[in-house]
Amino acid sequence: MSKYDIIVLGSGPGGYVTAIRASQLGFKTAIVEKENLGGVCLNWGCIPTKALLKSAQVFEYLKHAGDYGLSVKDYDKDFNAVVSRSRGVADGMSKGIEFLMKKNKIDVIKGYGKLKPSKKIDVDGVEYSADHIIIATGARSRELPSLPQDGKKVIGYREAMSLSNQPKKMIVVGSGAIGVEFAYFYNSMGTEVTIVEYLPNVVPVEDEDVSKQLEKSFKKSGINIMTSAEVTKVDTSGDGVKATVKTKDGEQVLEADIILSAVGIKTNIENIGLEDVGIVVDRDKILVNNFYQTNIPGYYAIGDVTPGQALAHVASAEGILCVEKIAGMHVEALDYGNIPGCTYCTPEIASVGLTEKQAKEKGIDIKVGKFPFSASGKASAGGNKDGFVKVIFDAKYGEWLGCHMIGAGVTDMIAEAVLGRKLETTGHEVLKAVHPHPTMSEAVMEAVAAAYDEVIHL
Amino acid sequence: MSKYDIIVLGSGPGGYVTAIRASQLGFKTAIVEKENLGGVCLNWGCIPTKALLKSAQVFEYLKHAGDYGLSVKDYDKDFNAVVSRSRGVADGMSKGIEFLMKKNKIDVIKGYGKLKPSKKIDVDGVEYSADHIIIATGARSRELPSLPQDGKKVIGYREAMSLSNQPKKMIVVGSGAIGVEFAYFYNSMGTEVTIVEYLPNVVPVEDEDVSKQLEKSFKKSGINIMTSAEVTKVDTSGDGVKATVKTKDGEQVLEADIILSAVGIKTNIENIGLEDVGIVVDRDKILVNNFYQTNIPGYYAIGDVTPGQALAHVASAEGILCVEKIAGMHVEALDYGNIPGCTYCTPEIASVGLTEKQAKEKGIDIKVGKFPFSASGKASAGGNKDGFVKVIFDAKYGEWLGCHMIGAGVTDMIAEAVLGRKLETTGHEVLKAVHPHPTMSEAVMEAVAAAYDEVIHL
Repeated sequence: MSKYDIIVLGSGPGGYVTAIRASQLGFKTAIVEKENLGGVCLNWGCIPTKALLKSAQVFEYLKHAGDYGLSVKDYDKDFNAVVSRSRGVADGMSKGIEFLMKKNKIDVIKGYGKLKPSKKIDVDGVEYSADHIIIATGARSRELPSLPQDGKKVIGYREAMSLSNQPKKMIVVGSGAIGVEFAYFYNSMGTEVTIVEYLPNVVPVEDEDVSKQLEKSFKKSGINIMTSAEVTKVDTSGDGVKATVKTKDGEQVLEADIILSAVGIKTNIENIGLEDVGIVVDRDKILVNNFYQTNIPGYYAIGDVTPGQALAHVASAEGILCVEKIAGMHVEALDYGNIPGCTYCTPEIASVGLTEKQAKEKGIDIKVGKFPFSASGKASAGGNKDGFVKVIFDAKYGEWLGCHMIGAGVTDMIAEAVLGRKLETTGHEVLKAVHPHPTMSEAVMEAVAAAYDEVIHL
Repeated sequence: MSKYDIIVLGSGPGGYVTAIRASQLGFKTAIVEKENLGGVCLNWGCIPTKALLKSAQVFEYLKHAGDYGLSVKDYDKDFNAVVSRSRGVADGMSKGIEFLMKKNKIDVIKGYGKLKPSKKIDVDGVEYSADHIIIATGARSRELPSLPQDGKKVIGYREAMSLSNQPKKMIVVGSGAIGVEFAYFYNSMGTEVTIVEYLPNVVPVEDEDVSKQLEKSFKKSGINIMTSAEVTKVDTSGDGVKATVKTKDGEQVLEADIILSAVGIKTNIENIGLEDVGIVVDRDKILVNNFYQTNIPGYYAIGDVTPGQALAHVASAEGILCVEKIAGMHVEALDYGNIPGCTYCTPEIASVGLTEKQAKEKGIDIKVGKFPFSASGKASAGGNKDGFVKVIFDAKYGEWLGCHMIGAGVTDMIAEAVLGRKLETTGHEVLKAVHPHPTMSEAVMEAVAAAYDEVIHL
């Protein structure tokens, strides 16, 4: 029986990063994967969707070339080529992970892994043991009882990024990051898209101002939006699919070719042996301490299967901390209040920390500053005037409580806020850090200035 | 005679920002401008060039639409429409400054201002006085004796952004930010472009690795590059223009329609009354102390006319500090070692702090980390694999000495390094600030990880 220092179960952005860091720290490491290296993120999530969205963004430039002094008369998208490019990018990245596993001397064990007591894993009948076993099996698309997925007419994200025929009409149920990214993509490609959101706002985890801006931008681009709305019944018996949608104004029936269910995720914790080992699970999540130990010594869990935000970068950060702690390094627990979230539709959304509503609900006296890109020189030059940066500070102690951005390129701009908050910056330090001109990033400085009544360009 | 608390001479990004901040602080403020509000930056620099570059970028998408699964058969650029869009953006911004002046109750005095003793300014024969006079007259294109500008065949940046006919062949002399931005723009539009750079590397103020990457990318896109080369003679007698270029391999004569001289700037310090007042000037710059006072009490100078970096954001920051100090606020002097520089060709360049060579020349023991975008998932998905992030740390004290980026969107990513350096971050704090996935900004985290032998994706 092969014996390792560390075995990681699952090779998503939690698992493979954990394995690399473990190997760097000198552990003899193996990783178990039943499908492709890289997990959902790399094969069916973050990466291939960004490839699709890039095609959509370029297609928008073709449509609006005249705005830039250019002319395009004869243009089209090739839906299959767009999808195929996306699959190619995912395949390339997965091969990259294969290379990284080799380079870091990590054994890749292909097959279905199941935890056994005494720190063992069974992979399709072969047993492996380790001093430390790290569970990183991730999650999948959640199914609502009222919206069972058949993979054809009612689909999840996985099918949505590899359809062989472009639907003419699509209903997207749920308007979190996955929902609005696909809504933007398909609308841009020419599909008639309707978003059905149960809560009163789209992207409901974001600051309300962001939700309102996205709704405005999406409506302008032709996407239909129904909020405070629920799909109560689905009929797939005919040619397409009929969805009964209940709103406060009553019920209506929408017709479409396809319904995309994007109502969150369900952790992959079934049939991996948790019960055999006695690992405690609560509300669909494996319970862990600050350094990802489960209740059973030698078993750890990171990523989507644990209670933190179900995001790739959280999984990676957790995995790194987990093995650094195992290695005896002095590490600080992850600050889950300083995790950025990004959504890559157009306009992009990026945020970190408390929303205005959350800060108020906590009873904090706050200063709020907002700077619209319509007042930014770079945004004007680039034709990117939609959106804004909004910042929230604690009025008494000056703590940067939250940063909320919507607009072009903001997913690359949020890192400043994350690092600034980690370093416990004050607003005035952000103001006195000279932001280059002309950039979109000046809007961060200006929003902070607005919070302190020092804004220049408003 | 009208009397003000503060009069600002010149309304570029130094002057108008200074005036707004002065007004916010309660000063009765006027600004003197002989042309359009906003100065060179807004009317003939930062902003209109970014508009041109955006058109070029979109034009590149049209050329390469097939890479994204799209097809374009019949497309073209309308050079005049591209220029006209750029002029429109500049005009819109200038009107915006007009609005800001009104909103902030700043008197705009149109005309040619000349300093007088006893804190007075003469504007076309009318005298104004103030308690504090701030000189912000900026700079213009520098002329080399061997390359006199006639504004037609040998031009500066100003003509280069408003030509009525697109040249077929262009020689760009100088490869600083202005030179390479125009080289990229005209090459993209279809002009045959040759860059002639006196020093051994293009963008010579940047880290050498950045220079090499840009040279590689530019050559790939069809731009001719001659380094360690000098234009010794120009002949404009025929139809076009002939430039004699001396290189280490001897002399050659290049023919072109137009030569763009982009060899730096010359300050606007002539005929503004400096001598009348007795203000000391050295090597083309007005000498000032840490808070921008000249040798004559009541007279201050900020922006390109002073020794700091000749950049819009430096001018703005100096002006704000200058009036905050006048207002009696407790302010810290500007850290000129933490000023970012940005260049907006494709690939973009952004940097702050010491280059590797500078750090070594100072005898500092350094740790260097570099992460190529070819290893980034977001860069692959976006088709932006050219470039990298390079970071330099002091090996002993952990200080973040420099950050050098080349690639898509890096001009919006450098703010993180500026703020981090201002807050005296360590490398490990950058590493433990969770960067969102998938973004280009992860490359900053990975480059830092590389410096500390903890890189994951290499």
